[in-house]
Amino acid sequence: MSAEGPGPTLVAMGGGHGLYATLTAARRLTSDVTAVVTVADDGGSSGRLRAELGMLPPGDLRMALAALAEETDGVWARTVQHRFGGTGALAGHSAGNLILAALTEVLGDPVAALDTVGSLLRCTGRVLPMSPAALTIEADVSGLEADPRVSRCIRGQVAVATTPGKVRRVRLIPSDPPASPEATSAIEHADVVILGPGSWFTSVIPHVLVPGLHEALVHTRARKVLVLNLAAEPGETAGFSAERHLHVLSQHAPDFAVDQVVVDSGSVPEGREREHVARAAEQLRARVTFADVAEAGTDRHHPGKLAAALDQVIRAPRPESAGLRVEGRHMGQDVRSALGGKERVSWR
Amino acid sequence: MSAEGPGPTLVAMGGGHGLYATLTAARRLTSDVTAVVTVADDGGSSGRLRAELGMLPPGDLRMALAALAEETDGVWARTVQHRFGGTGALAGHSAGNLILAALTEVLGDPVAALDTVGSLLRCTGRVLPMSPAALTIEADVSGLEADPRVSRCIRGQVAVATTPGKVRRVRLIPSDPPASPEATSAIEHADVVILGPGSWFTSVIPHVLVPGLHEALVHTRARKVLVLNLAAEPGETAGFSAERHLHVLSQHAPDFAVDQVVVDSGSVPEGREREHVARAAEQLRARVTFADVAEAGTDRHHPGKLAAALDQVIRAPRPESAGLRVEGRHMGQDVRSALGGKERVSWR
Repeated sequence: MSAEGPGPTLVAMGGGHGLYATLTAARRLTSDVTAVVTVADDGGSSGRLRAELGMLPPGDLRMALAALAEETDGVWARTVQHRFGGTGALAGHSAGNLILAALTEVLGDPVAALDTVGSLLRCTGRVLPMSPAALTIEADVSGLEADPRVSRCIRGQVAVATTPGKVRRVRLIPSDPPASPEATSAIEHADVVILGPGSWFTSVIPHVLVPGLHEALVHTRARKVLVLNLAAEPGETAGFSAERHLHVLSQHAPDFAVDQVVVDSGSVPEGREREHVARAAEQLRARVTFADVAEAGTDRHHPGKLAAALDQVIRAPRPESAGLRVEGRHMGQDVRSALGGKERVSWR
Repeated sequence: MSAEGPGPTLVAMGGGHGLYATLTAARRLTSDVTAVVTVADDGGSSGRLRAELGMLPPGDLRMALAALAEETDGVWARTVQHRFGGTGALAGHSAGNLILAALTEVLGDPVAALDTVGSLLRCTGRVLPMSPAALTIEADVSGLEADPRVSRCIRGQVAVATTPGKVRRVRLIPSDPPASPEATSAIEHADVVILGPGSWFTSVIPHVLVPGLHEALVHTRARKVLVLNLAAEPGETAGFSAERHLHVLSQHAPDFAVDQVVVDSGSVPEGREREHVARAAEQLRARVTFADVAEAGTDRHHPGKLAAALDQVIRAPRPESAGLRVEGRHMGQDVRSALGGKERVSWR
């Protein structure tokens, strides 16, 4: 797609390693990428900086910048990703987190700080926080008591991500955080919005819980693509099937719809299980694309394979509006049909 | 001088605020500046990083970079100079020190790290450590015991700089540290070398105690200028007269000679006291220039005034070799005459 011009205006939403994978794939498709990143981390270097300096947790933002760096093995990209070792006060801190902290204090604005590091790394595109305020994740978790029906409230991203119980529902604190205006604007003007993969309850679902982002996602005419994880994660999604990932997303945002769900073909056997996934996708009013997107032998997405799958999904005409374009974009989600439950859904 | 071209090849040696003042003045005279910086600090952010990461103490190096930054109030210059506040693990750390620490670990070479920050700040010139190894300063200090003839050994830059006793002599540990090869090369190829102002025992004298730097200073054909402090400093030079500053430098390096000594005219009254300074300068085989170089109401040099004084000193023909130039440079220090003790010495 890049051979044809700058490519589509693309927004990738998520956090952590999942978002890193999406961005590494997305930059192969377009030079117009905006990352919208969760800001609820409370662990490690990010958690320490958040607690000490009252700043946005910078780790996921830094990872997104590194993914979009012109030279990912350049001196500054390696320095931004460098982590201090040893046993002292700096041990475990990422240098890029410290640079973002200093720039934020100097400029008084986390977005200006991110843009400054973006320029330093000559990033393809831009990295934005989902909210200008640091958020806290709180979850209802069952299975922590003898009675499995009893659920307890667990607070903090690290605690939720590593709970031995079953996460039932997550909330943000505050419950109606502001969205970054730059992020809502990017979603509204995008051709394509990609959500996921990533830690489902702590990096993916939080995006649809920010009212301003949810509204922008509902109203944008962008094609919306949900990329499913390759496997359940120990802790927050232990034992989750592919369709359960889709169910819990729908439960948290019943009005949220996407156009396509990209599922690794190696992760879901053909037949009955794929039908379950397709049926779960109906709740999101989405079609499902099964494609080989895995880095062989890992639970991570292969950037080249994911880029190829995304490219195909993005290029495919929307069934209801094939050939119709409004100001260079496909029609929005308001003209979307439900798929029959038995239909074998694939864009390949 | 800059109006005539890039200006002379200039090396400024020192540390801390004194070197910052010299560099701020020097960059007005030439775009070819190399700072050679002491690396014996053991206090504050620098001392913590040195102890925790085993690196060169970065503070004086960072200050020199900031002095040479293209835009001293630019975002990166302000960020490099930014200091974290609060009460946490980062409190008191300079962001620029942390950036230098990370770059040094990534690149494995402090000079490459300095050059990288130099590029970031678009510095006029280059900043080099006096030695590739962190040094320790040790001093013989009298006046700490009831018997004033007893001297004690005090170790560490902070301890020496703040001792309530009288510093008699300083040494480096190790006693024969390597010089940075880039620094000796810069001195050898310079048109002008400026030493001082700065903390006399801990930022100025250490340069002549590094054998490789001493040798380069003795052999270079550069015009050598010593800039005297405006006042004694509480602690290491409390009660020192201008001429005593010169005496102790000669004591530490009997073979070391300079061409000119620049002394603030407001700091030394005309008459007998100036004669004493001129006589002390003879030990260094130097002439003395008295000039108004003070920032009014402070003990600091005024960059514009210091630049004007240095420009005059640099441009003045050497008495013994007026009109003679060898490959564009003045003759070296081997043809230097001693001055009569009673002569009133001034270049103004």
